[in-house]
This record gives sequence, C-alpha cells and structure tokens, in this order.
Amino acid sequence: MHKQIVLAKRPKGKLLASDFELETVPLPTLSDGEVLVRNSYLSMDAGFRYWMNEGSGNNILPAMTLGEPVQGVVLGQVEASRNPRFQPGQKLMARLAWQEYSVLTPDNDAVYPVPGGWPCADKLFLGVLGETGMSAYIGTEDIGKLQPGQTALISAAAGAVGIVAGQISKIRGAKVIGIAGNDKKAQKLISEFGFDAVINYKTCGDLTTAIAEVCPDGIDFYFDNIGGDMLKSAIDNLAQGARIALCGAISGYDQTQAQPGPSNLFNLITKQATMTGLMTHFDAQRYNQIRSQLFNWLDSNQLKNAETLYQGIESAPAAFSAIFHGSNFGKSIVEI
Amino acid sequence: MHKQIVLAKRPKGKLLASDFELETVPLPTLSDGEVLVRNSYLSMDAGFRYWMNEGSGNNILPAMTLGEPVQGVVLGQVEASRNPRFQPGQKLMARLAWQEYSVLTPDNDAVYPVPGGWPCADKLFLGVLGETGMSAYIGTEDIGKLQPGQTALISAAAGAVGIVAGQISKIRGAKVIGIAGNDKKAQKLISEFGFDAVINYKTCGDLTTAIAEVCPDGIDFYFDNIGGDMLKSAIDNLAQGARIALCGAISGYDQTQAQPGPSNLFNLITKQATMTGLMTHFDAQRYNQIRSQLFNWLDSNQLKNAETLYQGIESAPAAFSAIFHGSNFGKSIVEI
Repeated sequence: MHKQIVLAKRPKGKLLASDFELETVPLPTLSDGEVLVRNSYLSMDAGFRYWMNEGSGNNILPAMTLGEPVQGVVLGQVEASRNPRFQPGQKLMARLAWQEYSVLTPDNDAVYPVPGGWPCADKLFLGVLGETGMSAYIGTEDIGKLQPGQTALISAAAGAVGIVAGQISKIRGAKVIGIAGNDKKAQKLISEFGFDAVINYKTCGDLTTAIAEVCPDGIDFYFDNIGGDMLKSAIDNLAQGARIALCGAISGYDQTQAQPGPSNLFNLITKQATMTGLMTHFDAQRYNQIRSQLFNWLDSNQLKNAETLYQGIESAPAAFSAIFHGSNFGKSIVEI
Repeated sequence: MHKQIVLAKRPKGKLLASDFELETVPLPTLSDGEVLVRNSYLSMDAGFRYWMNEGSGNNILPAMTLGEPVQGVVLGQVEASRNPRFQPGQKLMARLAWQEYSVLTPDNDAVYPVPGGWPCADKLFLGVLGETGMSAYIGTEDIGKLQPGQTALISAAAGAVGIVAGQISKIRGAKVIGIAGNDKKAQKLISEFGFDAVINYKTCGDLTTAIAEVCPDGIDFYFDNIGGDMLKSAIDNLAQGARIALCGAISGYDQTQAQPGPSNLFNLITKQATMTGLMTHFDAQRYNQIRSQLFNWLDSNQLKNAETLYQGIESAPAAFSAIFHGSNFGKSIVEI
C-alpha cells in the first residue's frame, strides 16, 4: 500500500487544502515498458493549478481528473523497471503525481535524469536548478534582456520563480523592485536577496501610483506571475521599449470564469513594448547550459536559494494552497 | 482667409462626420522661426482618433483641443518662411492639421521632406511609401518575421495598413488570411491583392471558429489593427511561437471607457507567443531604407497601391469617419 493525494474537488475561487484528499491505495503493478518510481520530493508549482479547472486541457497537458492523483513534477528513484532505458536505483525527475510511488509510462515526454556529480542537494533540481530556475532565467535573460541601470519589476517576488528572477535581474545590473503581499517578506527580499525596494500590494493603496513612485523612469522589464490588475498596473508604468515576460497568471487560476485582460494594452503600442509568453517546456535542450550558469551564481553566492520544505505527503495540500494564500516563501517542496 | 476642419465634439461611441465642423478663418501670420505651409493632401490615419478623446494625451501627442483644427499628417509646400531651414516651394510632410494652410512651428519634431526624384506621385509618401507603409513593413518584417509556408492573419485587411501588411506577408511566402467587413472588399483582396482567403467578420458567425476553419494549423502572425474581441479570437488560434503586432485599436478608439483586454492572454504563455506594440514614430532613421524596399516592390508589381482619394477639405470628416464605418478601401487621402 502507499499514499497519494487526489483531486477531490475542482477548486472554486481560492484554492483550499480541502480540495484534496489523502488516499491509501495498493501499490501499482507494472506492464511492459513501465517503471515504478519511489518519489522523494514533490515540486509545488503554481502553474499546475490551471489544469485543475474543468475543460482546461490544452497543448501542454490534459485537464486533471477528479478523484485521480494530482499531477505535478516529482523527483524520485527507480524502484523497479520493465523498461530497458531505466535501471533500479536511477534518480529522475518527471511529470508524475503526488504519490509515494508513481508509474512512469513509456509515453511520458517529461522525464529528466537527476544530473549526477553536482555538489548540491538533489532537491535543488526541482527548484533553482530545475523548472523554477529555468523559468526565472529564460524569462529574465531571453525576454528581459536587461541592461545595467534599467528597472526590473518582479511580481510574486517572494515566490519560487520571482525570487530567482529578481536576483538574476540584480546580477544584470538592474534596479530591482519586487511586489509581495506582506512586509516581512518584503524586508527579507531587501535585506537578504538584494532587492532595491519591495511594494506590499495589499497596503500600498493604488498599485499603479505606488509603482510610479518607486520607478519614476518607468519599468524596462516586468516579470509577470500574476496577470489581472497587477499586470494592468505594470503596463501603466512601462518605459519605452519595455519587455514583459508572462510566466503565470495566479490571479486567473483561482477564477471559475475567464477574467478580462488588462484594459490598457494600447500602452504597449505607444511604448513599443513587448509581452512574451514563457513556457520552459519547449526549451529543454538548453537546460544543462542554463543549469551550469545558475549553479555558478549559487556557488559564488550571487544567487541565494530560497526554499520552504514540508515533511510528508500529507502536507502537500497545505503546501500547495499556501502558494495561493501568500504564505509561501521561495520554492515550496514536499519531502516524502 | 482659408478653410479648416475643427474638432467640434469629442466623438461618443462611433465617430461621425458631424463631430467635425468646417470653419473659414483668416490666414495666420508668421512669427520668427515659423513656416507657412500650403497643404496639398491630408492623410486620414485611424490612429489619430485616439487623441480626440478627453484626457488621451500621452508621450506621443497631447489630446486634441475642442474647437481647434484636427491634428493629422499632411503633405504640403512651403508658402512663406521665417525659418532658414525651410525655403518657399519646398515640399514637406508634417504632423500639422486639417487646414488649407498650416503654421509649422520650430518645435515640431515630425517634419520630413518629400523625397525628391522618385518616379511616383507625391501622395504615395503619405500612404504606401509613408507612415502607412512603414507601419505595415515594420509590423510584418520586424515583428512578424514570417517564414515561407507560415500563416498570417491580417485584421482590417482592406484598410490602409492591412492591405500593405497582407501583401508583404505574401511576398514573404506566407498563407495570407484577411479579416474584412464586407464581401465586396473580401473578393477584391483575393482577386486583386493576392490574399488566400478573407473572413467577413460580420457574417462568419463565431470568429474564433471561422479563423480555426481557415487556419487549421493556427496563426503564426497576427497583424492587429483592431484590438478587442477580434484580438481575442486571434489569440484563441495562435500557433506555437506566434507573433502579434499591435498596430492600432480601432475597436477601442470609439469607446468612451477603457475596454477590458482579451480574457485569454494565458494562451500567450502556453503558445510562447509574443505581442509587440508598433509605433513607427521611433524608427524614422530607417524610413529611407524601408521606402526603397517598398518602392521596389511597387515597381515590380509585387505590391499594389490601394487608395481612396477624396476631393476638397470639406470631405475630410466624411473620409475620416468612413474608416470607422468600414466604407474605406486602402489608404484614404484628401486632396485639397
């Protein structure tokens, strides 16, 4: 028998831990080509929230099924294999599910070996050296193209991706402004992670005005993890030729109906600004190279890992919902 | 005395010819540094509609003033000059106003000589060889980056910019789909301007479905002149890595309140798509080079000029409002 977390209800409004249920089920048996993976860590990624909605299937993933284990990226070890490509003991990361044991099927196209020989904990490959770091890097480097002295605005700055994006922006010589939801996080971002300023969007009053005060010359790069009204406030403050990386839309995931987009897209025209969607999924061939760069920054202490570690698969619902209630800091990982 | 068209009312809802009034006023006298220009042609550009709204002033232009001549791009000839940079008889284009005579002040930063020695009518420099052509070229070439066999969707395809953008897309080997508001225009775009298909958005039913039928592999490039629901339908149909050029927002100009943006921006993420604002204003140093390319295409008949010529300054209100009521075809120019 093993434990798993299933999607019990499709979240309505703000996602709650009670949208999930813990189940104990028999260990699966393997068919030809399949691999049994003992999961060690679950990566808590806000983006997966999207596929919990009814009818959300798209070119990336199908919608999750009610009563089935929650899909997500895990790091584990091969326990048994009926596939010659995988040997017992081998460590891998894959898009599997919130379970103690998962079956990797031969059609899974999101499987990566855990890189061997790196002087760091495996779980970093789920965070700053994994998809999280890739999103931050590709968004900031490829889309942000920051020049020294430019201004970067980072939403969800205390979140897994935002805290890395902000630090990369700083490495590139930008003035880095974060947006976060409480003063404690804000202070930590400034004192420990090199942010120049952080706006608390819950207490700042009108966000457009608050951004304008901290960024009087406008924003050259906006890293968007949120969408909605926050994106609108950023667009109100664009500098000429600004770049926006759309990395997520947390404000939209929680809505049962599609929310209108920002009403000020015309500003993109007058500012010759660019808004680009970011989906690391399609850039897997670059991961090794990017991972080396991120590791070098970590090693030289220019980049700090920020992580919240939860214990036991039972904690996954609370860990995941914390992201949507703003009580997370850095990368959230569940250790099984 | 000379005639001018003033902004009599701020347009409410759909712009009407009656929002303007014809006035006859004394010829202006010149101060030091000023130039009297006798206007020969007025360029009818949908974009200027934006600055007719209350409070629309931005980094490009101030809002137009009620009771004052309508701002726009004109082509004229220097009649008298108190500025050593300009000599009587010299032809120029400038952001001036809908008047028989305009005063060019020394702070006007949008003045260009009419290029001499080209074997074509001057008025082409207001259209396909002017701002119109620049918008189409920069949007299609710099933002669209079309590869042979890709699909381009062009909104307002029978409009001044759209008809050029569609033809450039064709020159680049794309399958070119237009969107227009009546079947006669649609037929003309196909039979005379090389479009592969044209969707009549007024009769096609659900536009998202209609686009999907004509573009089963999705859209690689969308040239947006419209914004609003049409932009949303295009975003619903993006191919992986699609590019959107935001060139105008006709659907928004007519609204008295800011309209919500498309509710499906999340598609930009899953499709790694890019949306870029286009404002030729900032690329003036490239005009000569682009103009040569456009002229060569005209000369070799790969690109056809489409123009509606109106006679007399009195016709400017009707000519301009026709753009918003869909009764224009190609570039609209008023000959004075």
